[in-house]
Amino acid sequence: MLEPEQILRLEDDRVVLLDQRRLPTEVVEVECRTAAQVADAIRTMVVRGAPAIGIAAAYGYALAGANGEDLAEAERVLRASRPTAVNLGWALDELASDPSATRARGIHRDEVARCRAMAAHAASLLGPGTRALTHCNAGGLATGGYGSAVGALLSAWEQGFLAHVWVDETRPLLQGARLTAWELETAAIPYTVIADSAAASLMASGEVDAVLTGADRIAANGDTANKIGTYSLAVLARHHDLPFYVVAPSSTVDHRTARGDDIPIEHREPSEISDRFPARNPAFDVTPGELITAIVTEHGVHHAPYGESLARATVRA
Amino acid sequence: MLEPEQILRLEDDRVVLLDQRRLPTEVVEVECRTAAQVADAIRTMVVRGAPAIGIAAAYGYALAGANGEDLAEAERVLRASRPTAVNLGWALDELASDPSATRARGIHRDEVARCRAMAAHAASLLGPGTRALTHCNAGGLATGGYGSAVGALLSAWEQGFLAHVWVDETRPLLQGARLTAWELETAAIPYTVIADSAAASLMASGEVDAVLTGADRIAANGDTANKIGTYSLAVLARHHDLPFYVVAPSSTVDHRTARGDDIPIEHREPSEISDRFPARNPAFDVTPGELITAIVTEHGVHHAPYGESLARATVRA
Repeated sequence: MLEPEQILRLEDDRVVLLDQRRLPTEVVEVECRTAAQVADAIRTMVVRGAPAIGIAAAYGYALAGANGEDLAEAERVLRASRPTAVNLGWALDELASDPSATRARGIHRDEVARCRAMAAHAASLLGPGTRALTHCNAGGLATGGYGSAVGALLSAWEQGFLAHVWVDETRPLLQGARLTAWELETAAIPYTVIADSAAASLMASGEVDAVLTGADRIAANGDTANKIGTYSLAVLARHHDLPFYVVAPSSTVDHRTARGDDIPIEHREPSEISDRFPARNPAFDVTPGELITAIVTEHGVHHAPYGESLARATVRA
Repeated sequence: MLEPEQILRLEDDRVVLLDQRRLPTEVVEVECRTAAQVADAIRTMVVRGAPAIGIAAAYGYALAGANGEDLAEAERVLRASRPTAVNLGWALDELASDPSATRARGIHRDEVARCRAMAAHAASLLGPGTRALTHCNAGGLATGGYGSAVGALLSAWEQGFLAHVWVDETRPLLQGARLTAWELETAAIPYTVIADSAAASLMASGEVDAVLTGADRIAANGDTANKIGTYSLAVLARHHDLPFYVVAPSSTVDHRTARGDDIPIEHREPSEISDRFPARNPAFDVTPGELITAIVTEHGVHHAPYGESLARATVRA
């Protein structure tokens, strides 16, 4: 398993990011010397995953402080780097009163601690012999260490409850086939990569017991934005009477966004889908809270209706 | 639009196939001089699509006859080339009593005529301004000319009923992004390619009016095997109260297979999904008849329960 500082870290004069675009073929780092370079790394998905984006933004902002950069401008470019993950704005808000390296590293440490806590809560939902299906990468790479949905699978594995993981390849950027597969391989957990479109027939054949995903933003009512295809899995899970769990830290909950319709959805370059023909490339979709069996944060297991439970979770944070 | 003989044809001493693996980047033909070479071309997907596979097998068998090859051996290798499409065996059965070039070309001509007929029936199901979603390639390339589901879209377009086509890219071999997009581009029909996993959110946003796919084998009770991901779309269509239509010639109906569970599903090389990590790669899934709003053959529009209606369709053939 990767240590948090292998995924991303703040040094005296730079932010160092493991280049997630080139995994698993190459394990190389990208060095950012300014907040703008960090923003560019977020935009181009050197680092991705809502919590990891938040940590990277915190590091970029602290770097700007250490560099003597214009902090308002640094905040602006970091906030604008990607629109859907709420952790980005959350981390910058957290640093507003103390843009120090110590505080930024504290955010990173706290996110990893949240992962450990939510993994324990989520693993308790899984019965012996669970064959879980996951989408995109909600592992340590996405959270700065340990992982959210994949962290739950690691925890279940350690407790002997996990039999197998089905990994959606996750088009167009293949975060499942590249990143989640690599993390599970490293952890020696049995897994199989499938085309995203094969999840339905696996469910129909009785080979899936539960679906677990992360989240990029959770609205106050529990509606959840996550990687495109997540909503599809939630509908399929409901049709096949399977539990669908969202595992995400409370930093992903956006109490200022009432419901899913209000979450801005990033559309990325059509060329990620086709370099020849017209294409549409939404990076995320929104799963209504009523299709989510439970949302698991570091505070515990939340059930629908989510409003009050999620609100309490943050007050306790 | 491609002429049938541009897609595949029988010449005196060879079967010539448009190489569908290399479209749209290159438009090149593959020449097969023996039945075994035709079988190999089917297996490696130089030609694909259930009706086109049937035509190719008929041409391969007729070529074997012209060559003086062992016909029993020719039939064996052709039948074994791919397991799921029933048209392959159907075409060989049709040629058993007359393995001539004339009969093989007649099968090709008849399949294209069936496409024209079913396109007219299917187009009648679509209202003005229809935004249709389709999966894989059920176009002229798949049927030897005109197409089944895409033929229906061409017909609807000619009648002014079609507003837009959403094209699932169709992992892993991208028949949607490569072949269907190319056919729609050629026909000047407005279309957009999407990741397979984006279909659900498009439906949720009200941008899809109907789903149309082809079929590789239809069991006697209407259960339908088609490209992996088709069943997923059928579940999603039901969840969003959208009609889900299967458009396929009666040569795709297998009256000797009672239900979907009895259809053999081809599993292809895992390397089509991942060249590094373990993967599972079913090429097809099965959609239960009860999720299919209508099955359209050249004989008309069939509704559930399908047994009697499909049986009558063949008797009338």
